[in-house]
Amino acid sequence: MNNEQIVVKMALDAWNSHLSRTEKLFSELSDLQLQQEISPGKNSGIYLLGHLVAVHDAMLPLLGLGEKLYPSLYNIYVENPANAGLEEPLTEYLRKYWKEVHARLASAFEGMSTENWFGPHKSVSEEDFKLQPHRNKLNLVINRTNHLAYHLGQLVLLKK
Amino acid sequence: MNNEQIVVKMALDAWNSHLSRTEKLFSELSDLQLQQEISPGKNSGIYLLGHLVAVHDAMLPLLGLGEKLYPSLYNIYVENPANAGLEEPLTEYLRKYWKEVHARLASAFEGMSTENWFGPHKSVSEEDFKLQPHRNKLNLVINRTNHLAYHLGQLVLLKK
Repeated sequence: MNNEQIVVKMALDAWNSHLSRTEKLFSELSDLQLQQEISPGKNSGIYLLGHLVAVHDAMLPLLGLGEKLYPSLYNIYVENPANAGLEEPLTEYLRKYWKEVHARLASAFEGMSTENWFGPHKSVSEEDFKLQPHRNKLNLVINRTNHLAYHLGQLVLLKK
Repeated sequence: MNNEQIVVKMALDAWNSHLSRTEKLFSELSDLQLQQEISPGKNSGIYLLGHLVAVHDAMLPLLGLGEKLYPSLYNIYVENPANAGLEEPLTEYLRKYWKEVHARLASAFEGMSTENWFGPHKSVSEEDFKLQPHRNKLNLVINRTNHLAYHLGQLVLLKK
């Protein structure tokens, strides 16, 4: 493996290990536990579940891997706060969406070449990318892993 | 820049941006707020401050950049839980240690070559590194950034 291939492995290993930890946590938390707030007056576990599904679903178009599977979630769980009073899916559906979005991402990642990972993601123009070549697809995964770790640190607080 | 240099920049940018966010948060939280638990029955802000300083201080020897500045912190904030009853430094000292450890890391990072970043960190043997070349210094920074993001997600809960 050359260093570029090694780095792709490093970034995907970190992404997958945080996904596994989060998935294990969600499987251990009941729907009732997910309704609790992570700390008094803060987000509920359900809101964070919806937030993570929506943000990860949006990675599909950003990485050039197709359309979002559940575009309506973005408005509910990213563009609006928890207290906006929007109608939310049942928790059992959110759990199902979580699995589907990550299965789609995993299968798309398998087929991606190293060269593709170092190419621009879809929210950067070709011109900007020439000057800012760090705005590549791999960087998006690194940033989303940090975002996931941030919320995983909050979700573990729901465990008794 | 070649792709190796680009990746070093990506990893250091993510590290620095999470450090800045955390430092800004600590500067906004009073000592009294840091004494609060992030959620009822969970770690206090002070414990997490000490934990992050101790873990980041330990990066110095792991990256081959010298000895820890405050080795006694590791026992208090990493090897033991918050309720172990160990004597802790005053919060004002922990705030000072935070600044010193990160100043030392930042100055050492400036002088590191791309080749050095892709070399083995100090907890992997030369033999293991031949088979597992992803266990390099850059990977340590990527993992510590995720660890920092995890606890940053908890520390923001102290804000009212």
